[in-house]
Amino acid sequence: MPRLVDHEVRRREITDAVRRVIVGGGLEAVTFQTVASEAGISVRLVQYYFGTKSEFLLATHRSVMADAGARFMQRWTALGADATPREAIRAVLTELLPLDSQRREEAIVLGAFGTAAITGQGITAEETFAAPRALATIVTDQLRRAQVADASAHRIHPDLDADLVLMAIGGLAQGMLQGYGTAKSAVELVDHLLDRVLGTET
Amino acid sequence: MPRLVDHEVRRREITDAVRRVIVGGGLEAVTFQTVASEAGISVRLVQYYFGTKSEFLLATHRSVMADAGARFMQRWTALGADATPREAIRAVLTELLPLDSQRREEAIVLGAFGTAAITGQGITAEETFAAPRALATIVTDQLRRAQVADASAHRIHPDLDADLVLMAIGGLAQGMLQGYGTAKSAVELVDHLLDRVLGTET
Repeated sequence: MPRLVDHEVRRREITDAVRRVIVGGGLEAVTFQTVASEAGISVRLVQYYFGTKSEFLLATHRSVMADAGARFMQRWTALGADATPREAIRAVLTELLPLDSQRREEAIVLGAFGTAAITGQGITAEETFAAPRALATIVTDQLRRAQVADASAHRIHPDLDADLVLMAIGGLAQGMLQGYGTAKSAVELVDHLLDRVLGTET
Repeated sequence: MPRLVDHEVRRREITDAVRRVIVGGGLEAVTFQTVASEAGISVRLVQYYFGTKSEFLLATHRSVMADAGARFMQRWTALGADATPREAIRAVLTELLPLDSQRREEAIVLGAFGTAAITGQGITAEETFAAPRALATIVTDQLRRAQVADASAHRIHPDLDADLVLMAIGGLAQGMLQGYGTAKSAVELVDHLLDRVLGTET
C-alpha cells in the first residue's frame, strides 16, 4: 500500500520540520507558515495532514517520544539479563542526556513542551507526564533489585532514590542545554550520582 | 527627589507586569501591547521607560534576581554563625524551590528565560549563568566545611557534590512547576538529597 507509506513519510517530514523550527526559535516560532517553509512544502499541504496547530504539535511530541523510546528499548535489550542494577540505571540515564545532536534536539523539543505546559500553552501536562512516570517505574524496579542484593550498611530507599535520580538527571539535561559543563563532566556526574544513591564499593 | 522615586516605581510596575504576562502565557506572550495592557498604562509610556523589548526583559530578569537575592540574604543572615553546613545548604535549597506563590512566579519567569536562552531568544546565557555560579560557590564552601568536620567513613567531594545538589534542585523546581509532587514531598526529597550527599548519622 504505497499510499499509506507516503502518508506516514509525509507526516514525518512535517513533524521533523516542527522539531527544527522549535530548536531554531522555540515553540513560539511554530506556525503553519514556518513549518511549511522549513519542510519545503505548501501551507495547504501541511493543513491537509494536520488540521490544527495542536494536531501537529501533539504528533511532534509523540514522534520524539517514539524515537527516544525505540532507542531506549534497543539499549535496554542490548544490556542483557545479567546487567547489574547500576549498569541498567546508568544506561537509562545516559540515554536521556543530550550527549549527541539527536538527543540534544529531542531534549530541546521536550523541554520546550514542558515549559509551555507550565503556562498552559503547547500540549497538556498529562501528555508530558507519561514518559517520566514510565522512567520512574524502571528506575524504582532496578533500585529494588539493588536493595535486595545489597549486603552493606548503605540503605537504599527505592522510591525516594528514584525521584532523586530522575530530578537530578532532569536538572543535568536542562543545564547541559543551557551550556553548563561538557559531555565528560555530565557522565562523571551521573557516576557520582550512582555512587551517592547505590553506595560506593568500599 | 520625588521624580527619581516615581521613575523607579514606574519601572517596577512595568517589570511586575512583564512577570505576570510571562506566567500567564510564556515569554512569547510578551509584547509592548500586552505589557502596557497588563500594567494599565499606555504603550507610549512603556516605551518612555524602556526603548526596546530586550531592555524590559533584561530589567525583569534583574528584578527577579534582585528579589530572590534579597530574600536569600535575609534567610542567610537569620541562620547565624553557628548554623551547621547541612542547615545552611538546606536553607539555600528550600529558598530556591517554588514553595509559595512568589517563588513560583520567580521560578516560572527564570525558567522561561532559561529555556529561551537555549534557542537564542530572550536574554543571553551569560545573564542566566550568574546566579547558578554564585550558588555553586556557596554550596561548595559549605560542603568543604562539612568535609573538615566529618569524622565518618563517608567521603564528601565538595565540587562534584555541589554540582549534584544544584542539578537535583533545578530538576526538582522544574518538576514542581510542571505539577509533580507536593510541597511536602519536595522538602522530603531535599532532606533525602542532603542525606545522600552529607551522609546520614548512623
